[in-house]
Amino acid sequence: MDNHWFVGVDIGGTTIKMAFIDTYGEIITKWEIATNTHNEGRQITTDISKSIFMKLDELNEPKEKLAGIGVGAPGFINMENGFIYKAVNIGWKDFPLKDRLEVDTGLPVVVDNDANLAALGEMWRGAGDGAKNLLAVTLGTGVGGGLIANGNIVHGVNGMAGEIGHLTSVAKGGAPCNCGKTGCLETIASATGIARIAKEKASESNDSELAIILSRDGKLTAKDVFDAASKEDALALEVVDEISFHLGLAIANLANAVNPEKIVIGGGVSKAGDLLIDHINKHFQTYALPRVAQGAKIAVATLGNDAGVIGAVWLIKQKVNN
Amino acid sequence: MDNHWFVGVDIGGTTIKMAFIDTYGEIITKWEIATNTHNEGRQITTDISKSIFMKLDELNEPKEKLAGIGVGAPGFINMENGFIYKAVNIGWKDFPLKDRLEVDTGLPVVVDNDANLAALGEMWRGAGDGAKNLLAVTLGTGVGGGLIANGNIVHGVNGMAGEIGHLTSVAKGGAPCNCGKTGCLETIASATGIARIAKEKASESNDSELAIILSRDGKLTAKDVFDAASKEDALALEVVDEISFHLGLAIANLANAVNPEKIVIGGGVSKAGDLLIDHINKHFQTYALPRVAQGAKIAVATLGNDAGVIGAVWLIKQKVNN
Repeated sequence: MDNHWFVGVDIGGTTIKMAFIDTYGEIITKWEIATNTHNEGRQITTDISKSIFMKLDELNEPKEKLAGIGVGAPGFINMENGFIYKAVNIGWKDFPLKDRLEVDTGLPVVVDNDANLAALGEMWRGAGDGAKNLLAVTLGTGVGGGLIANGNIVHGVNGMAGEIGHLTSVAKGGAPCNCGKTGCLETIASATGIARIAKEKASESNDSELAIILSRDGKLTAKDVFDAASKEDALALEVVDEISFHLGLAIANLANAVNPEKIVIGGGVSKAGDLLIDHINKHFQTYALPRVAQGAKIAVATLGNDAGVIGAVWLIKQKVNN
Repeated sequence: MDNHWFVGVDIGGTTIKMAFIDTYGEIITKWEIATNTHNEGRQITTDISKSIFMKLDELNEPKEKLAGIGVGAPGFINMENGFIYKAVNIGWKDFPLKDRLEVDTGLPVVVDNDANLAALGEMWRGAGDGAKNLLAVTLGTGVGGGLIANGNIVHGVNGMAGEIGHLTSVAKGGAPCNCGKTGCLETIASATGIARIAKEKASESNDSELAIILSRDGKLTAKDVFDAASKEDALALEVVDEISFHLGLAIANLANAVNPEKIVIGGGVSKAGDLLIDHINKHFQTYALPRVAQGAKIAVATLGNDAGVIGAVWLIKQKVNN
């Protein structure tokens, strides 16, 4: 199998990321196509299939070069048959993604949740550095996650595992969350949550850079907070410490239960880098058991937008080689 | 293999539970021997070995009837070689439990943590009812646990997974825990924690049955609390609700991350039965994502003291049959 390539596909609401990747996880070439959400997304598998074979032609390689396709998709996925129960951004409902793509391409296909595949990608080729027990936390507009135990994704009984954003951080009186509950980690540690907390604090302050930005722009972003914190703005540091307390506590609680070797923090908010990691780590050390804390390293994700396609290829590679 | 038996061994600080168990998980016979902790526990594997062959003679069965031995041990275990790093109650330090027992018996041996094996036992033959994604929580003198994902025990990177008792329930100002941290779930939901909380509340009350017992006996037990709660004593119900809030919240947070099918509550405190489960479930439903809550059932462990030997046999059976 060693000179075969695999296809990694990461389907998002506006673009589909694609790559040919070799058996060692090296990207040969990567490209994107637009996500066609018309007609309930029925055209998408044909678009992917056509794009794969056009790219193969471009590179003068035969179909036999490809050994299989790994696909990351948003929404709820039935792992047994590769059906997408529901992906609101795309319009799929009970969509047979795996079957359609296998028929269109004649190649074996595996499908998994995009957040899980990003965790696998980081495990294989990124900050996870081969760790077979890994917790991935993605801090973006929302807070997502993936859990790998014994080298395998933990899906749980109905594919909901890894919903780290919906751990409850504030049991009583927390902010409302998109999921319908209140006080979820996502209401605090997402870019949106950070902006909300910063705004609350800045409204009651006069001398912070955040208060100046808020009165100038009428709004605050997570980036404003980290920029100000890196300049030692006291209020911004207070916001960073508050969200890091909740992240460190939630991650320590999970770590006491699953004892990961690596905890990989990704997503847009993770661009804050050491400033964020150091604050999270301080609280993590307080709440993790000493031996759990010794065994675990918190690191920023390194693969960026490539994590999904690389993780997808890891998964199809396991399947084809077994 | 179908007419072979396996040996289940559950090593505790005072007694060693043993059983011959068939390939379907039915106990053929079970018995106990004393744990000989003299001389740093060096005699224990010989004691186990002798006891197995004596019992086999008693039953007029040849050595060939036995296909392997599964052993549950307390303390920290190196899963790769079956060494016990440290088991304080027994005196073992870097003890080659698996190797010794294999040499003494001539049979294949697997060793795992006793709490993990109890979880496996419940998965196979108890309240877990075959669920491949299961969370076991043991409420005894302390609070222990075990996590099964994709049908396998989650050990984590250094065997610490499942330390559910040390999730932090009270981040600031909690009671001190044996582990060195404060505010752990164990300080609240163990038999000891329940007694502590009941005593605090009863000391400030006059009209509760708990206050009467406290002034009569000078102490309160977890059993006193549940007995009084089952007679609708308001203060006792308040204690039950408080500990159930912390249990329900911690279990919901873990469930959002691992999405179990079954949550099995065992240990002495679980004898409180429906009174406890109903209270836990109320809070669990508040904090679990709706789809996670739908997928999960909270149930009292059914195997009691047999869970460990049955789980041990499940594990050795997997190994011998592969």
